[in-house]
Amino acid sequence: MNLTDLPTPCLVLDRGILKRNLLVMANTLKRLGVPLRPHMKTAKSIDVARLALEGQPGGITVSTLAEAEYFSSHGITDILYAVGITPQKLDQIGKLNAAGADIIVITDDLDTAAAIAAHPARPRTLIEVDSGEERGGLLPSDDRLLEIAHRLGSCLVGVMTHAGHSYSGRSVSDMERVALQERNAVNEAAGRLRQAGHRADIVSAGSSPTARHAQNLTGLTEVRAGVYMFGDLFQAEIGTHGADSIAVTVLTSVIGRRPGRVLVDAGGLALSKDRSTQDAPVDYGFGLALDLAGRPSYGAAIVRRAYQEHGVIEMEPARPIDLPVGGRLRVAPNHVCMTAAAHDRYYVTDGGQDVVAVWHRTNGW
Amino acid sequence: MNLTDLPTPCLVLDRGILKRNLLVMANTLKRLGVPLRPHMKTAKSIDVARLALEGQPGGITVSTLAEAEYFSSHGITDILYAVGITPQKLDQIGKLNAAGADIIVITDDLDTAAAIAAHPARPRTLIEVDSGEERGGLLPSDDRLLEIAHRLGSCLVGVMTHAGHSYSGRSVSDMERVALQERNAVNEAAGRLRQAGHRADIVSAGSSPTARHAQNLTGLTEVRAGVYMFGDLFQAEIGTHGADSIAVTVLTSVIGRRPGRVLVDAGGLALSKDRSTQDAPVDYGFGLALDLAGRPSYGAAIVRRAYQEHGVIEMEPARPIDLPVGGRLRVAPNHVCMTAAAHDRYYVTDGGQDVVAVWHRTNGW
Repeated sequence: MNLTDLPTPCLVLDRGILKRNLLVMANTLKRLGVPLRPHMKTAKSIDVARLALEGQPGGITVSTLAEAEYFSSHGITDILYAVGITPQKLDQIGKLNAAGADIIVITDDLDTAAAIAAHPARPRTLIEVDSGEERGGLLPSDDRLLEIAHRLGSCLVGVMTHAGHSYSGRSVSDMERVALQERNAVNEAAGRLRQAGHRADIVSAGSSPTARHAQNLTGLTEVRAGVYMFGDLFQAEIGTHGADSIAVTVLTSVIGRRPGRVLVDAGGLALSKDRSTQDAPVDYGFGLALDLAGRPSYGAAIVRRAYQEHGVIEMEPARPIDLPVGGRLRVAPNHVCMTAAAHDRYYVTDGGQDVVAVWHRTNGW
Repeated sequence: MNLTDLPTPCLVLDRGILKRNLLVMANTLKRLGVPLRPHMKTAKSIDVARLALEGQPGGITVSTLAEAEYFSSHGITDILYAVGITPQKLDQIGKLNAAGADIIVITDDLDTAAAIAAHPARPRTLIEVDSGEERGGLLPSDDRLLEIAHRLGSCLVGVMTHAGHSYSGRSVSDMERVALQERNAVNEAAGRLRQAGHRADIVSAGSSPTARHAQNLTGLTEVRAGVYMFGDLFQAEIGTHGADSIAVTVLTSVIGRRPGRVLVDAGGLALSKDRSTQDAPVDYGFGLALDLAGRPSYGAAIVRRAYQEHGVIEMEPARPIDLPVGGRLRVAPNHVCMTAAAHDRYYVTDGGQDVVAVWHRTNGW
């Protein structure tokens, strides 16, 4: 099977680039002396998880209970569900843990802490800390930190944070600064807990940009990161990886031709409507068109409009896409987590255009 | 089963609102004397298709070959695949037609027309006409129209257009004007074909706003529309339906609370990153929060930020969302076609909060 045989649109994963991205992150964290708990929310694939776990302790991070169920059914037991738990979801956690998983949950809420401690599942729990993103979590100085710890009792095993505001950074020094905030916030919270006699065995932090650019991770017991595995146009722009390190692209066919542009069968569903690069130095619209080999042969050929199943690629006059209807392109995604989520599988290549494997994804909730 | 029992996030479909929306469109087109070929790209559900086809000839429109396969496997045979065909996809069309379907394809391309005529499948084909959207299709005056007709030979059965630029309209008079453009363009193309001795049995046009607001559809043999079935915040803003006619919402749980906002477990994947309302009179961000009964009890409580699995709802100070972690909301979508696509099923209600059915969706390609 070759890229020219596949139904379009579909997702192509270059295993060589994936492995290189995994190696860069593994080496970065090895140098800093902290193991990785890879976040599987981007890849949602056991095949990718196995590669990402090479040389690591074996725990993963997930963003949905569907992922938790999928990965535990494939033998991964140490799973951090890194979205604030609700009391109602504890039954499902209990079911999965009873079947062999050991899912860790997170909370920043007093009543939920009490509900966790009172639930028969009594899962291991981390308190979520806000290191500057202002999404979930308590500030490390928040009075409620110790009260939540008290309510969790022996369920409490540590703290976690995600410095998602690293995505607003635009330079290496920005990322270094946010990585320091992230580390300091979670260390401060862990320190307060320990001082009050609580456990903080796990001190977990991470985002791909901060994991990549941190100078010192002292105090952390693990780093979480996910999008680094595949990379995308936005992560390239904020310096998480180079422009040639995007492992996942959308294979698409030309379905119409007009002066200055081509119409393709990858629209808002196949590419997602994510506009991450809108405020980055280069606005890539809904994605950048590459040739079938994945090279940027068409310069700034950008998907400027995305309808449900139609994408409109505007071409550089000097580098036209001279393909007939049925001709094929690959589109590098703005934000690969969002793009990949519409697809149920990866067609895996290894540098060339031959499909060497098909890997399943687990979507939904 | 009740809305309070469901795993979140998930998709809720109010059958009563759906039926009312279907009736409004059916009555509108009945008055204008044109049958409906409902577009199933929004609903992607055989249960919805059956309701939408009541009193209609029985043909549908689809946006993917996966939909074509799904609906034909459920006994619907007259299917218009309304995305420009590529030569490579003809094999799949042939396979489905050999199994009992009668899929109509569209093209605006000379070489593709020749490929269609030469392929053993020889599917019925419409020439795509551009009525002002500037996406796919030929202008009705284009010289290539007759050449494509010539190449298609007996595969040619008519013309079609989609006035997607109706989405830029903001008033009833805008929609009436675009509906007239849409009708005139496709009638002009059909007239030229007939004058040259070709067949134009099918003269197909439509979008939800133009179908809803057209004053006269003389010459059309059918109208295509899809999003009207469910409705969304954007369609309400451009006048396709009222604000109380949104049949599909995303059920979500509160996972965090902060002054002025709540964090919910419906993020960019569950809601989509579509920002249709950005340039409409009211910008609803990534959706509008409703109470569990689907009422706008919280005023302008808008999902302002959408991460992969987290949504941040900013509240009106005077109408706070006073729910604990685990409390439930429903979010009305910006663009329901995009939102629904992340979900594999509808939890169907009928005015209340009891789940009266679960309907499957067919996603992907």
